[in-house]
Order: sequence, then C-alpha cells, then structure tokens
Amino acid sequence: MLERIETIEALRERLAEISPAAPKHEVRRRALVPTMGALHDGHAALIDAARRECGVVVVSIFVNPLQFNSQNDLARYPRTLDADAALCLDHGADVLFAPSAQEVYPEPPECTVDVGHLADHLCGKFRPGHFRGVATVVLKFFQMVQPHRAYFGEKDAQQLAIIRRLVGDFNLPIDVVEVPTVRESDGLAMSSRNRHLSPEERSVAPSLYEALNDARRRILDGERDGRAIREAAAARIPQSEQHVVPGFSRTVNVRLEYLEIVDPATMQPVEEVDRPVRVAGALWVGSTRLIDNILVQP
Amino acid sequence: MLERIETIEALRERLAEISPAAPKHEVRRRALVPTMGALHDGHAALIDAARRECGVVVVSIFVNPLQFNSQNDLARYPRTLDADAALCLDHGADVLFAPSAQEVYPEPPECTVDVGHLADHLCGKFRPGHFRGVATVVLKFFQMVQPHRAYFGEKDAQQLAIIRRLVGDFNLPIDVVEVPTVRESDGLAMSSRNRHLSPEERSVAPSLYEALNDARRRILDGERDGRAIREAAAARIPQSEQHVVPGFSRTVNVRLEYLEIVDPATMQPVEEVDRPVRVAGALWVGSTRLIDNILVQP
Repeated sequence: MLERIETIEALRERLAEISPAAPKHEVRRRALVPTMGALHDGHAALIDAARRECGVVVVSIFVNPLQFNSQNDLARYPRTLDADAALCLDHGADVLFAPSAQEVYPEPPECTVDVGHLADHLCGKFRPGHFRGVATVVLKFFQMVQPHRAYFGEKDAQQLAIIRRLVGDFNLPIDVVEVPTVRESDGLAMSSRNRHLSPEERSVAPSLYEALNDARRRILDGERDGRAIREAAAARIPQSEQHVVPGFSRTVNVRLEYLEIVDPATMQPVEEVDRPVRVAGALWVGSTRLIDNILVQP
Repeated sequence: MLERIETIEALRERLAEISPAAPKHEVRRRALVPTMGALHDGHAALIDAARRECGVVVVSIFVNPLQFNSQNDLARYPRTLDADAALCLDHGADVLFAPSAQEVYPEPPECTVDVGHLADHLCGKFRPGHFRGVATVVLKFFQMVQPHRAYFGEKDAQQLAIIRRLVGDFNLPIDVVEVPTVRESDGLAMSSRNRHLSPEERSVAPSLYEALNDARRRILDGERDGRAIREAAAARIPQSEQHVVPGFSRTVNVRLEYLEIVDPATMQPVEEVDRPVRVAGALWVGSTRLIDNILVQP
C-alpha cells in the first residue's frame, strides 16, 4: 500500500504513526530515497536497498528549482508522477512524498548550505550554485522526514561526497548509503535525462562510459600521470563538434565538458594516481548533459 | 542531579534513555539551552523557562571558534565551567553538555550555513563571518541534541532572527523560544563580557540602553523618521573618544559602533518607523564590545 502525501504536516503526522520508535528498533527504522522523479531502474535499486534495510521507506519526488542553473533545464526536466507512483508501489515503498514548490519554499530561503571547496571542480565548476541548491534541499528533506538512513546513487558522485560531508559537518544522525550505478546493456548510466536523447544521440551517449573505462585500464596498467590519463581517455570521445553517426544521415553535436580524476571524498583533483580515485566526466550530447563516474583503485 | 557529558556519542546514548518518546509526550519533551558558558542571570532565565516547559533540559556550553573574528576575543572569552555547572544545578538542568573543540570540529568544516541578507546589517556588518559561525554551530548542536524546544535570549536579537530563519528555511522540527533580556538595576543588559569592564567602564556602560530608550521615547512620541531618531539617540552616548567619568580620575574610551532601527524578522533597516521595529546598538567601552536592543511598537 503506497501512500501519496503532499504536505510536510501530513507527512510528519503519518510518520509519527507508522514509525514512532527510537532508531534502535530496527524494524521501524525509517529510510529516505530523495529523488527528482522520472524514476528509472537506478532509482528502483535505491528503493530496493532501502526496502531490504528499513521498516518504513519514504520516496520523495521534488524537482528542486534551487539547484537548476538554467530555467530551460528546469522547464524541460521530465515529470512523470503517475508512472513514478507505480514504480514506488512495485518496489514496496510505503510513502511517496511529493510536495509542491510552494510547500518546500514558501518564500525564497535566506539560509542555504555553503558546500565549500567540494563544489570547486567537476559539475560544481560548470553549474555555479547547483550544489548549494542540492545540499540545501537535501538538508530540508532530511529534516522533514528525519530518516535513519538515506539512499543516494553512485552516479551522482559529487553530490554523494557533498551529502556525506553535510552529514558529518552538521552532525546529522543519518547513515548515508551509496548504491552502485545501474547501466543500460551498452554501459550508458541510467538517467532521467536519457529520455531526451534522439536515436542518433543515444547511439553516441555510451562514449562517456567508454572514456572512463579507458582511464581505468590505464590506471590498472600502471599509468600514474593524471594528465596523461585524462587526455588519452578524453580522446575516446568524438572530438568534432559535429559527430557523424555511422548508419544515420544526421549529425550529432558532442562536447566533453570535463573529464577529471579526483579524490573520492574531497573532490579535489589528483595529479599522481597513487590511491583510490574517482574518474568523472560530463558530456553534452545535443542539448542533453550526461554525467558518469567510476571508482578506480590502482 | 546534573550530569556532565563531553562527547556526542555519550550525549545521544543518555538522551535516548531519559527522553526516548515522541514529542507528543510533553513530560519527556527535550529542551536545549545553547550557551558559550560564563553563565549569568540571563542564562538562568533561559534555563528556568526551559525547566517550566520541558521534561528534559540540556544546557550546552561551547565557546565556538568559528564565530570569533578575533583570536584575541576568543582567547579572552571568560571560561568558568565549575561555576557554570553550579548554576545549571541550581536551576534544575538535567544535562550539562560541554564538548571540546576537537569533538565539535574534528576537522575544519566544508559545509557551513550561509545566512544571506540577515547578516548584512548590525553586528553582521562589523563581524564578517560571525553569524555563519553561529548558525553553523547552532545547527550542529540542534542535530546533536535534537531538542523539541530551544531557548535564546532577546539580547542577541540578530542571532535570534537568524536562528528563527534557520529553523524555517531548513524545516527544523524545533520551537524557538525567545526569553526577555535580563538587566542590572541600572539597565545594563547582562552579558558574559560585562566582567571585563573596569569600575570606570562599568559606570559608562548603561549609556547604550539609555540611548535605546531615547529612541523608544521618540518613536512613542510620534517621530517616524528613522534617521532623526537614530541621530538623536546616538547623541546620548558619550561622543568623545576619551570620556571622563565623574568621580573617577581615569578616562574611558567609548565608541558607538552602530545604532540601527531594523525590521525584527529580516534585520533590514527601517527608514519610516510605521510598524514594530528593533532598535539595536553596539558600543565599545574600552576594549569590550557590548550589544543591546529593544523592541518598539509605534
């Protein structure tokens, strides 16, 4: 039985009824899976993990205006609430919490979370204010739901590193659980934005993951020079602005926004790859921005 | 029986034992009185209010390095832990939580609270980063203690406005309770910093409250021009850099840092006093900085 709730007050009342006990009663332990909706198999894996470990599973769906740099990106972000509810029900969630923007932000916030140097690189560099918006809304949902555990996908590695730091720096009594990236059969990381891709664009999209794997192979082969690894991996991405897809008559605009090697916790660049690192990239395919990353242990 | 606790883990374990229930059981309701120690009758009023309204009263003492702009001010901030514990016991607190700086900040934080325009004026203008430090540490202590109610003094009005906004913007499930300023018989607001004042300085210190009362009288008399009110009130403060105290041979350095009229919630200046306002000032007396404020309803 999935309950759909839209207000913070109703959520708190309901949670007090179904999950009233202290965390030590594991059967009543409360999970939060925060999402922006347009749910796919990657989200399903988060819900499954939460279901296995907690007595009460809350999935939140909120397309957070504070984390969008572009009004156009916000407007075209897919919204599929009924299908999302069906997926939540299939995977055994107890509560689908989908508040309105007015409910979450009755007025523009004055207090926000400054995430410091964790946003200096990768997506943070190209999306100013994005992670301030992410950290702020996640802190808000943590307070609304008060979960014992919260589930995030490895695909959004910088977000995950920031949430971990948020929890540590602010002493939040929450376990952050990382769930591995779910991929299509050709390696493309599942993403709500994949549905924007045309067939031609879709055929080019896995090149980002191929580049990350190229970097992994070089590191495992003993290469330690971060710059050399990055440049060789980036060369795996179609270099021309207009990439001609074999078998298709149209061309596809492809542009690598970044491909970086960073420390998994601090998200600072690593030049000498002598310890575990995250290799992360962002690729524009047409007007769609895709991100992906892998953890590599040399 | 007052328990003294120094680690977050021990605090959480103990609170889970003595205050395990949901907020609806009022007798177990948990109060936090966050302080920096050097407790005086103003703090006692906070503890008394918490004791009346909640089943479990936690007083925290932590001199927060993150909110001091000056290392000198941090070093000379009074520390009187044993006397503080006696006051807590006298006023019926249950737990005195006094963690070390290492316990609160095992590493310098990356995530901090940006308090936006609430710090643009008054103390925020003269103490860059101060309220970021205050909001960050209060958020941390809120997460450590998870109180249902938290008690703050009206004397620190800008802090109070920021904590209220913090609670609203981040959806913290906490009631913020404001307790009126406690004053000496001559009107001086009680403050841990008062003990730094020499007898000569002490004799001049009440002039700040006198100036605020001058502003109140003018507003109640129908004056609406914020600038005229501020200038007249400021003229009540000794103007010379070297103020000669009658009856004392030495001189006292007095300097008014600010005297402002602001909106009580937004802390933005009010030029036309046609609604409730806070009149707030900061006065340097020797090397001690005193603040005070009053709420005035025209």
